[in-house]
Amino acid sequence: MHAFDEALRLEPLDAARPGVFRGSSSPAYWNMVGPFGGTTAATALQAVLLHPALLGEPLSLTVNFAAAVAPGDFQLTARPLRTNRSTQHWFIEMTQPDAQGAQSVLMSATAVTAVRRPTWGQNDSPMPAAPLPQDCSPAAYPDKLAWTQRYEMRVARGDLPRLLDGGGKDSLSQFWLRDNPPRPLDFLALTAMADAFYPRIWLRRAKLVPAGTVSVTVYFHAGAAELARTDQGYLLGQAQAQNFQQGFFDQAVQLWSEAGELLVTSHQIVYFKE
Amino acid sequence: MHAFDEALRLEPLDAARPGVFRGSSSPAYWNMVGPFGGTTAATALQAVLLHPALLGEPLSLTVNFAAAVAPGDFQLTARPLRTNRSTQHWFIEMTQPDAQGAQSVLMSATAVTAVRRPTWGQNDSPMPAAPLPQDCSPAAYPDKLAWTQRYEMRVARGDLPRLLDGGGKDSLSQFWLRDNPPRPLDFLALTAMADAFYPRIWLRRAKLVPAGTVSVTVYFHAGAAELARTDQGYLLGQAQAQNFQQGFFDQAVQLWSEAGELLVTSHQIVYFKE
Repeated sequence: MHAFDEALRLEPLDAARPGVFRGSSSPAYWNMVGPFGGTTAATALQAVLLHPALLGEPLSLTVNFAAAVAPGDFQLTARPLRTNRSTQHWFIEMTQPDAQGAQSVLMSATAVTAVRRPTWGQNDSPMPAAPLPQDCSPAAYPDKLAWTQRYEMRVARGDLPRLLDGGGKDSLSQFWLRDNPPRPLDFLALTAMADAFYPRIWLRRAKLVPAGTVSVTVYFHAGAAELARTDQGYLLGQAQAQNFQQGFFDQAVQLWSEAGELLVTSHQIVYFKE
Repeated sequence: MHAFDEALRLEPLDAARPGVFRGSSSPAYWNMVGPFGGTTAATALQAVLLHPALLGEPLSLTVNFAAAVAPGDFQLTARPLRTNRSTQHWFIEMTQPDAQGAQSVLMSATAVTAVRRPTWGQNDSPMPAAPLPQDCSPAAYPDKLAWTQRYEMRVARGDLPRLLDGGGKDSLSQFWLRDNPPRPLDFLALTAMADAFYPRIWLRRAKLVPAGTVSVTVYFHAGAAELARTDQGYLLGQAQAQNFQQGFFDQAVQLWSEAGELLVTSHQIVYFKE
């Protein structure tokens, strides 16, 4: 079993309560003070995909990170709020017991799933020109964090800064991304990869300040059929901030298939300290 | 009282249940099959701002539109899911009774509020060059929908298409925006204005197809102090799609103060039919 599928494994807690699961935070995707947020976000979507009442495919997902997930088990609940003819609205919550034993909220999320249908289409964000993956160097993460080992990240532009002199010029990165080892692409992997870019402030300031995602939204522009075509290929991912103010900045992300299809647009708001 | 404040008026339903409110959908902001989504989104934020346990100011808001709001009363519930030292996580739900009298979900939302603090800041998305508001023509809405009368919208670029020949070239609009009549800017007004751009597909295809927002996320980059400086001035708003596929497209929005401060970045995923 791939480490990513292992990290996203959920067990139904009670046959009488569909959508209530037990999972376990993944050492294989450990970040500094908890598991990589991308796996936490993907786990929220996993709870929706495993729900017996699911309609359609993921269209949008917003995940709010309320507290670090501790090592060990967590409880995850996905609840359909409303089901229409071709869309379905979801609320998802992740909890762990606090010191007093009460379930404490670590993550909340909403999702919309939908039935896609053929229409006119147009990609107005063509994939930027980039050298081939094999001609790009691996990203230079300063620490050997577990989760960064779970991805092949090859830098076309905007590597982690090596010279930490406060002299950054912009916040634009373009990375080729792939699971390590490779794994066929699906909505879960896309969700995690949308959150795989390091905090833009590190690049913009050339300074490694504490930073963490507060909320991330992922829009899925492709259906399962298109994802299946991408199989185990690389994605080209791009990340850039628009604004840094008063302890927070945003981070806009696009993910393209190697064939140039825009699969995901994503945005997050990130806390930073300095 | 300004029509916008009237539209967002909420009454606590029960002193024993803080965060549970009754409101009423606003004829003054009526759109085609319900009130303008921007007022519905602002109403979700209003419930948070009126909650007695509120910590900090709005940082992010995601609103999912599950069904059209009918004329008359609705119930709105805002619940703090977790309160940290400087951030607070919220879930919000709007309901109306269905044919059987059961509360049916029309809108769900999450929000994060936060305490802002002075840090290094940088706006990497400068306001685009545009003619002065008084030199721009009003937007050419084809129907006299009530909600469009509640805004002064002056077109710097990307007006509603007049020639519906399917020959659109891009999806970029730049409008000066202001409440009509003017009203001092706050988080509520920003929320509604982030959703005030007409569907990008109308411009991209030069074709007025049915379209409606499914989910919108708003990031607030400024605090109450900066908003107060803007007072009743115009905002410059920009909207553009990245991708149209299989019945859905995204719409990215930025709102600047007339002085060039980036106040809001926002994104939405929109359903379309053709």
